[in-house]
Amino acid sequence: LHSKLPDVGTTIFTRMSALAREHGAINLSQGFPDFPAPEGLRQALARHALEGHNQYAPMIGEAALREQVALQLQNFRGVAADPTEEITIVPGATEGLFCAIMALVGRDDEVILLDPSYDSYEPAVRLAGGRAVHVPLNNRDFSVDWERVTGALSPRSRMIVINSPHNPTGAVLSHSDLETLQALAEQHDLLVVSDEVYEHLVFDGARHHSVLQYPALRARSVAVYSFGKTYGVTGWKTGYCVAPAAITAELRKVHQFNCFVGVTPVQLALADFMAAEPAYPAALPAFYQAKRDLLQRALAPSRFRLRPSPGTYFQLLDYGAISDEPDHQLCERWTREHGVASIPISIFYQAPPQQHFLRLCFAKQDEQLLRAAEVLCRI
Amino acid sequence: LHSKLPDVGTTIFTRMSALAREHGAINLSQGFPDFPAPEGLRQALARHALEGHNQYAPMIGEAALREQVALQLQNFRGVAADPTEEITIVPGATEGLFCAIMALVGRDDEVILLDPSYDSYEPAVRLAGGRAVHVPLNNRDFSVDWERVTGALSPRSRMIVINSPHNPTGAVLSHSDLETLQALAEQHDLLVVSDEVYEHLVFDGARHHSVLQYPALRARSVAVYSFGKTYGVTGWKTGYCVAPAAITAELRKVHQFNCFVGVTPVQLALADFMAAEPAYPAALPAFYQAKRDLLQRALAPSRFRLRPSPGTYFQLLDYGAISDEPDHQLCERWTREHGVASIPISIFYQAPPQQHFLRLCFAKQDEQLLRAAEVLCRI
Ligand SMILES: CSCCC(=O)C(=O)O
Ligand SMILES: CSCCC(=O)C(=O)O
Repeated sequence: LHSKLPDVGTTIFTRMSALAREHGAINLSQGFPDFPAPEGLRQALARHALEGHNQYAPMIGEAALREQVALQLQNFRGVAADPTEEITIVPGATEGLFCAIMALVGRDDEVILLDPSYDSYEPAVRLAGGRAVHVPLNNRDFSVDWERVTGALSPRSRMIVINSPHNPTGAVLSHSDLETLQALAEQHDLLVVSDEVYEHLVFDGARHHSVLQYPALRARSVAVYSFGKTYGVTGWKTGYCVAPAAITAELRKVHQFNCFVGVTPVQLALADFMAAEPAYPAALPAFYQAKRDLLQRALAPSRFRLRPSPGTYFQLLDYGAISDEPDHQLCERWTREHGVASIPISIFYQAPPQQHFLRLCFAKQDEQLLRAAEVLCRI
Repeated sequence: LHSKLPDVGTTIFTRMSALAREHGAINLSQGFPDFPAPEGLRQALARHALEGHNQYAPMIGEAALREQVALQLQNFRGVAADPTEEITIVPGATEGLFCAIMALVGRDDEVILLDPSYDSYEPAVRLAGGRAVHVPLNNRDFSVDWERVTGALSPRSRMIVINSPHNPTGAVLSHSDLETLQALAEQHDLLVVSDEVYEHLVFDGARHHSVLQYPALRARSVAVYSFGKTYGVTGWKTGYCVAPAAITAELRKVHQFNCFVGVTPVQLALADFMAAEPAYPAALPAFYQAKRDLLQRALAPSRFRLRPSPGTYFQLLDYGAISDEPDHQLCERWTREHGVASIPISIFYQAPPQQHFLRLCFAKQDEQLLRAAEVLCRI
């Protein structure tokens, strides 16, 4: 059997969550809340399951949900988007990313990925027939080195994938980053896939800058979002893509023959909840910032250095002062020996730099964060 | 913008369902039940939504559901399958088909499709980098012309996609078909993707023959199934793939970076219902055969010729005696003018033969079938 992804194993998130379960460890690895989703949202799903339509949704997603997305884009980002031509509901942001890349990357096209990069991007590029060109973020603060990006461009460059707030580092792109990207993309005729699934998780009063807010950038971008992240229901696997009509048409051609549609009662439940609680996302920064701060304070007495976490629900922890062990090995060992599971960072690099980082997810109950910190302080 | 699927439009199912809604037509086009799903199943989803785990399922699917699938394979097909190594839960059979094709078809590989072929197969083959080679079914009875298949093979042939019971014709492969396929696949080292989503819808006391029941065939096959079809919840978008461990490993590599997982509460609800009502699928042939027979009797006085429908919930109707109009045009016109929506068949062919078929879905309430038949009898 010839493998198209010979060097790809089971994703680190699946492996670490399985290891955490096996050892009864506190699971700060995979990014999902360990507390219940909003009650109104769960009730809405129960209602639609019992009374509603349990057959195929329209291929582009339920109209009610696309309308709510359009309203939210207006309210939170000040941008107008056409629910029929520009918004597509997808069964999870990962599928949205996959469809965007599959639709837009052709044979031997090059795609710029900024390392550390989320582990689904490169396989999607390769399966699309393209080639990933990895450019590392600045190691100091995980900002983008735009000169290095420019230097990595070639006549075959077709796309750049950005991700802000950034998983796994928590870095957030600035207004000036987006202006630079806009100029670069125009100059080199690049398409942009913008993974913005943590859009509402930006802390310390800072703002999320979306590609949708930069017209010339938006004209060549697919922005990808996740209801799972925003509403704390990662297991509902529902997200959406926003792109200009011409790009959306191509994305949908792939989507309709890939998954075809997402789950109907889930889409209708999300639409109901968003209509009932339109301000829900506005409360997220304070909620998750409190968790970040709790974790940071609890880890202050430890021997680790904490990296700033301006966004996402992830915290990087530098264990370089304690050990030289490779991060994936240390991660597994600590899950077994200390009962705390985290995510190693080196695997998100094509060429991992000399560093020793673990990623902790703080979308967890306070007591779990405190228990994990207590253990980590004893290491 | 360069399109990778320049000749692909919106899928016929989406277009006809939208047209039916627009004109308030009886929708016998897209394949989904218009009656409620089993109450116990809907209650199970409500329960899991309210009380359950709404975060990521394991990448390969919830263990409880994979166990139920293994039990059913044992009970209904007499085959053993390992829930960890051989069964993968997917967000809909369409995603399963897509992942199987994407994982196994390489650049310039040829894939045999039997026309009329379901509309997702060819785009998946092309996106995988392969080339579809279309072989028409016998026009008389929609059986496979194995000599023609053999004649279409080349050194680049890598895979054949089969579909039994067959959408859109209702044809069912025989034991001897599967034996012939087994010999052919071994001789020419072909992989097989077997779309068996209508496995339980076989009528008149006949039996479904699965690739899983032919060991040498099974060793080189991915069999794809749909909970949506079997349990009448097409909007839940959940299916599964059964394949040998080595093939499963490749399929999962694509799946994990495509959709990653399906919806957790949906998977758990299906597992509960299957555990509570293990014999549920056994009642399906009688239930749907009664609908087929009702429709056939009601159409007997019409000017159409009905094709036999030994399986699926589709009925082909030959309007050749009435009109020479191309089927896609007639389909749209009848939806507008007569208020009955159906599916044209020619679009499932690379080279449509001289014939005039419409597909009616009879997974509809009896009164809808009777109303539609009344209209059709007046044409
Ligand atoms: C797709 S499972 C991983 C969830 C996630 O985005 C993360 O943990 O980074
Ligand atoms: C994927 S929507 C179409 C449903 C179906 O399988 C059909 O109508 O043939």
